[in-house]
Amino acid sequence: MYIGIDVGGTNLKAGLVDETGRIVTVKRVPLDFRGSEHFARVLAELSQAVLAEGVDAQYVGIGLPGAVSGGDVLFTTNIPMENVPLEKLFRQYLDLPLLLGNDADCAAVGEFFCGAGKGTEDFAIVTLGTGVGVGLILNGKLRGGAVSSEAGHIVMRQGGESCNCGRRGCWERYASATGLIQQTEAAMEGHPESLLHEIAEKNGGVEGRTAFQAAELGDETALAVCHAYAENLADGAISLINVIRPEVIAIGGGVAAAPEHLLLKPVREIVKRESFGRHGGRITKILRAELGNDAGIIGAAFLGRVM
Amino acid sequence: MYIGIDVGGTNLKAGLVDETGRIVTVKRVPLDFRGSEHFARVLAELSQAVLAEGVDAQYVGIGLPGAVSGGDVLFTTNIPMENVPLEKLFRQYLDLPLLLGNDADCAAVGEFFCGAGKGTEDFAIVTLGTGVGVGLILNGKLRGGAVSSEAGHIVMRQGGESCNCGRRGCWERYASATGLIQQTEAAMEGHPESLLHEIAEKNGGVEGRTAFQAAELGDETALAVCHAYAENLADGAISLINVIRPEVIAIGGGVAAAPEHLLLKPVREIVKRESFGRHGGRITKILRAELGNDAGIIGAAFLGRVM
Repeated sequence: MYIGIDVGGTNLKAGLVDETGRIVTVKRVPLDFRGSEHFARVLAELSQAVLAEGVDAQYVGIGLPGAVSGGDVLFTTNIPMENVPLEKLFRQYLDLPLLLGNDADCAAVGEFFCGAGKGTEDFAIVTLGTGVGVGLILNGKLRGGAVSSEAGHIVMRQGGESCNCGRRGCWERYASATGLIQQTEAAMEGHPESLLHEIAEKNGGVEGRTAFQAAELGDETALAVCHAYAENLADGAISLINVIRPEVIAIGGGVAAAPEHLLLKPVREIVKRESFGRHGGRITKILRAELGNDAGIIGAAFLGRVM
Repeated sequence: MYIGIDVGGTNLKAGLVDETGRIVTVKRVPLDFRGSEHFARVLAELSQAVLAEGVDAQYVGIGLPGAVSGGDVLFTTNIPMENVPLEKLFRQYLDLPLLLGNDADCAAVGEFFCGAGKGTEDFAIVTLGTGVGVGLILNGKLRGGAVSSEAGHIVMRQGGESCNCGRRGCWERYASATGLIQQTEAAMEGHPESLLHEIAEKNGGVEGRTAFQAAELGDETALAVCHAYAENLADGAISLINVIRPEVIAIGGGVAAAPEHLLLKPVREIVKRESFGRHGGRITKILRAELGNDAGIIGAAFLGRVM
């Protein structure tokens, strides 16, 4: 049995996960950060809470939004932690190793064992959210910790839009859910007649799915947004593919739920037409991620298998 | 002892290489391609010619410009071979395994054991020539054969200049020696007063080094060309770094011989300023490749150590 903890923006979710990747027990508590010491104690208490009577766990895995290295958190994007020796603090409360991963890497691990990456040796996940989170597993080993992939920061448009990372024109500026929302809003400004306005209003604002919903109803402006977005997603994915040529790239995050014909189908066509693999060597498959919100817990729980 | 053969555009060079990477014997013959069968025989004869009396070799390694997969050549860029079972043909003449690598990968292997990559586990070479050839060694293993890196085909300017690979705006269009020559020629057109004209004329045309030579003499136009070129080289290198975060990237090829302050120094500054590593995790070092023309033979000879 393994314990996996997924640290989200608002909740901590801990799960006891069996060898097959089934979540046996899950506990969720609101994230209430009161310093690193307290946080470590909450993690230890949560771990104990999901450990059934008489069950042994080899370690606790934890997935965080941010950068980690060994047992240390270098920084997190939604919690004020910087250079925190989290494993050391944790072990004051529970005598189990604490394995750290960032959230994109945990998603990769979860999908690798139990989802779209099953049966592969070289696998990548591309999670479309606030940014573009990429996790890589090569030869069955996670590129995690200090070498965790930041492929969302491939520059796709030299001198393009400013990115949080300090570069300009990063893939994630154009292919994240945030980017899609901005592209949708920009299209709405130029097209007051578009259905996008109506749909956005009904849902209390523009979301990642707004353009897909309007496109499904035949709205031309929305179709153009979806088309351009698929191209941006594919163009960065092909650059990633050309560098490491994985067997499978899984696309995850809320946006990946878009209708097949509006997102993954055009992405697959562009990848097939443009990736280097058509000149010889491996052709990478583009799949949809399968685990949804469970990927974080399962991936954290299985961190020890890919390190 | 190992045998390494470097297949260049005009010559075949075979070397007997010892455990330390020293080339003990070398033989060079002009490339005279008369079909795959004949080519396989020439390779076998060359191998036997460098094998000293009483010396055993475990295998013959060969580096080719093109794509390989297992014992097969998928295609080559300067020899008309396509889907040729080269190892099978070779073994008709010499009963030794034939290990195939592309030339960028062999350069990576050579530098990994005997040059700029010594002592690392995660290493990349970026060879600036007709294109941008990238070879990757991750966790001590070559990403070779069917998964050989084609990081020269990271798109850096979406919709930019057409690349041989079929995409637009690939890194290699801007950062190869070919790209540099085009950029130098374009600058000359707009600047008839530039020293570039004089230097190019003296050397019988524009070369990769022309801009660096003029810049060393204080020519403003040439300085601008060198500056922009360093930026293009750095921008693609950072994208590669952000994906796989190697310990070291070595820059090779004739252009890499440019004066430090005009090429590698500015590249290092841009990498330091913009790569994701400054937010935490590994910082990648940029070094100059060390082995020059020997990298091909040594790398081919050591292919068996990284597969």
